[in-house]
Amino acid sequence: MSKRVSDDISQAEVAGVRALLQAMTDSLRDPPSLEKLRADYEAMGQAYPVADGVSVTPSQLAGVALEQQTPSKAGQGALLYLHGGGYGIGSPISHRHMVAQFVAATGMTAFVPNYRLAPEHGFPAAVDDAVAVYQALLDQGYAPGNIIIAGDSAGGGLTIATALCLKAKGIAQPAGLFVISPWANLKQEGSSYAAKATSDFIVDVGSLNHWAEAYLAGASANDPLASPVLGDLSGLPPLLIHVGSEEVLLADSVRLAEVAGLAKLDVELKIVPHMPHVFHYMWPQVTAARIAIAEAAHWMKACLSA
Amino acid sequence: MSKRVSDDISQAEVAGVRALLQAMTDSLRDPPSLEKLRADYEAMGQAYPVADGVSVTPSQLAGVALEQQTPSKAGQGALLYLHGGGYGIGSPISHRHMVAQFVAATGMTAFVPNYRLAPEHGFPAAVDDAVAVYQALLDQGYAPGNIIIAGDSAGGGLTIATALCLKAKGIAQPAGLFVISPWANLKQEGSSYAAKATSDFIVDVGSLNHWAEAYLAGASANDPLASPVLGDLSGLPPLLIHVGSEEVLLADSVRLAEVAGLAKLDVELKIVPHMPHVFHYMWPQVTAARIAIAEAAHWMKACLSA
Repeated sequence: MSKRVSDDISQAEVAGVRALLQAMTDSLRDPPSLEKLRADYEAMGQAYPVADGVSVTPSQLAGVALEQQTPSKAGQGALLYLHGGGYGIGSPISHRHMVAQFVAATGMTAFVPNYRLAPEHGFPAAVDDAVAVYQALLDQGYAPGNIIIAGDSAGGGLTIATALCLKAKGIAQPAGLFVISPWANLKQEGSSYAAKATSDFIVDVGSLNHWAEAYLAGASANDPLASPVLGDLSGLPPLLIHVGSEEVLLADSVRLAEVAGLAKLDVELKIVPHMPHVFHYMWPQVTAARIAIAEAAHWMKACLSA
Repeated sequence: MSKRVSDDISQAEVAGVRALLQAMTDSLRDPPSLEKLRADYEAMGQAYPVADGVSVTPSQLAGVALEQQTPSKAGQGALLYLHGGGYGIGSPISHRHMVAQFVAATGMTAFVPNYRLAPEHGFPAAVDDAVAVYQALLDQGYAPGNIIIAGDSAGGGLTIATALCLKAKGIAQPAGLFVISPWANLKQEGSSYAAKATSDFIVDVGSLNHWAEAYLAGASANDPLASPVLGDLSGLPPLLIHVGSEEVLLADSVRLAEVAGLAKLDVELKIVPHMPHVFHYMWPQVTAARIAIAEAAHWMKACLSA
């Protein structure tokens, strides 16, 4: 519930989050090297515990390496989770602990592709990998109505791009799309870029421009598979968007909600005050993150076919 | 839940809603007279049943006439409900049946002011009346944390304007704000005005311009108490927004969510596909309306102080 979330954000927690983010972004803003950034991100993720009862298995589908996360009491459904990291960093390892929270809360089995990253592999390699894994899940016997695609940050934009690509290919849509702080417009537009420039401790327009250039590799940011807010979202399944109020990327969530609503999607947008980019990541420290995870899990389960 | 709502919108229901709206708007678009419009609106509202166990009593607070709706099993909390009707029509009678749904679902006691209407009483008469009734509820002994302000259409904009006025006066904010298809920008701006011009059977830009001119009575549409999306919403309580996808006013809901998020409010925006302006009004015929009412009731109860 909305009210409970804001009630539970103590000032101590907010201060703790800030310290954590400062340490993280000191390294992210002045990247020493891509290799070090990727290693640091994985190390940060591994510092968090994986939920009890969730087993993690390296695997691959359709030639794409991935981690499969299986809950001890497996319920129905597959969660295709697309990690964030500006299309240039991040992996199933950096996001293992956060995905495990969703697996534990839903009973779904997660598939977390190690999709190809830029600059080694530019657009649309990431989309192609996500679509290939989705198709492989169908081939394995998962009904579309029992699959959720989800992702955070760049993985949130990739979630919508994947659904657009499925539509273009005539492949059945999943049961729902859940995105956290999506980067859904590679042109960095909207009022939050100025309004939140000083309060966003993780993302800034310079970094996004850098990551966008590396990912696009000469392609246009106007391509809906790169900037899905520019696409025709009609025919996509229900969409849940979570975002923090202290993000330069707040504008992307709002615009995504608007475009999706205009296209007659079933849309829920939740803006959580005082929260930074992908605050769910800090679930052990942040009450609002745990509440958001529980709410998203509830939404995802309700999307699945009975 | 999001998915269930869209699943439950049968094509037959949508067709029924259209027929209903067509009959209603045939009279609204070419107004025979303000008196007839007001009478027709009340007659339409009275054609719907009032929920079992809800008793309706004419009363007044702070000199403002109102209807008090009391549930058979009264729980905690007061719902200050501000009806819609373009600031020119509507009354506690036209909205009695819909408010009763919220009373029955929450156990809260509702107070529905018969706030002064334009053109007889222009801006800010409606805001003044709403603030006066809120203050009277405090004087009666309701804690701010046990009051929700809610409203639809013009009453939705008025809900936010009332909260802004409370802030300016140094009066404590209520526990939450719930708005249905709010008219929160009297300048009629946003992409939905063009995109939904042919699919919105109730509201069109010409009518809104007409109602705005009558209400403003020479005041500026840039006044935040008239167009609250232009105000500084910081310090306002949690905000829940419901809107249909087939509304020219969709843009107001999206912009309100954005402005509220930028101001660090706790925001939830729910866009329900295929639904028209203030679809909750048609709760007997429309499943999605009943689900939305139940969800809003749940949200309002969670906002109240324990």
